[in-house]
Amino acid sequence: MWSRAGNLVPTVLESLADRQQTLATAESLTGGMLAGGITDVPGASRSFVGGVVSYATRVKVSVLDVPADVVDRHGVVSEECAIAMARGVRRRLDATWGVATTGVAGPDGQEGHPVGTVWIAVAGPEVVRARLLSLTGDRHAIREATCESAVSLLRDLLREEPRLR
Amino acid sequence: MWSRAGNLVPTVLESLADRQQTLATAESLTGGMLAGGITDVPGASRSFVGGVVSYATRVKVSVLDVPADVVDRHGVVSEECAIAMARGVRRRLDATWGVATTGVAGPDGQEGHPVGTVWIAVAGPEVVRARLLSLTGDRHAIREATCESAVSLLRDLLREEPRLR
Repeated sequence: MWSRAGNLVPTVLESLADRQQTLATAESLTGGMLAGGITDVPGASRSFVGGVVSYATRVKVSVLDVPADVVDRHGVVSEECAIAMARGVRRRLDATWGVATTGVAGPDGQEGHPVGTVWIAVAGPEVVRARLLSLTGDRHAIREATCESAVSLLRDLLREEPRLR
Repeated sequence: MWSRAGNLVPTVLESLADRQQTLATAESLTGGMLAGGITDVPGASRSFVGGVVSYATRVKVSVLDVPADVVDRHGVVSEECAIAMARGVRRRLDATWGVATTGVAGPDGQEGHPVGTVWIAVAGPEVVRARLLSLTGDRHAIREATCESAVSLLRDLLREEPRLR
């Protein structure tokens, strides 16, 4: 499991628990793997409230409240969609932080983007940030690297947070 | 990853695609691992529409429409809660089949139930079935065995389905 490679997930979960903050995930290409890795850590329930796997585009719209207009104009493999997913799950699950993944795990390309094109986004109380990843490897490796990068982006924002307030 | 142990997930996904039916997941103790294993299979998007990780009890109620009354009377580690989760995600995500997991992954017991007490449920067009599992092993092993059993229960119902119509 990807979260066992390093100790980033326990560190982030402890940091959230210390702040009495909560986390929710919105996943497209990772399809549950991000939440699955987070909840593999005992005590995750102190901070992790849950997530939405919005694999089909219609679930992004109906459950995560991603505006249909965002999907039509930018596609689902886009910064705009990743941000809307992170904001949507944060709001829907009433969490302090929302983390989102959307992109192309392969084996086929999508919306004209090559395999490995991934957007991740984190939405918090006073900040939203997205990051574009260009990953290599097979489907499983791309999904794992996406999970690691998503948790890493959250860790970066948690470190910066005192400045953001 | 649990789904790599056997070929049950590809088989179930193919069976669903052949029937032009769709699948959604509602996960508590497995926390995304079930959806993550399903979407590890290339082409999963033909049948798998998405899922809800309802780790916190309030997410079971607010997103999956599990009646608060069910939680109060039976607890979240119960047949009633598993069935409500399966029905809820099937309806919320407009899928043919809903599969749910709820139980105690450990390391601590919950609601008076020992570690390894798990309920899984599958809700379909004309059938709902739940199964009680008493699993052994560590947190990771219990979560993996739950995923395998949930897919196995869905396969059983798909096999029976012609009889059910």
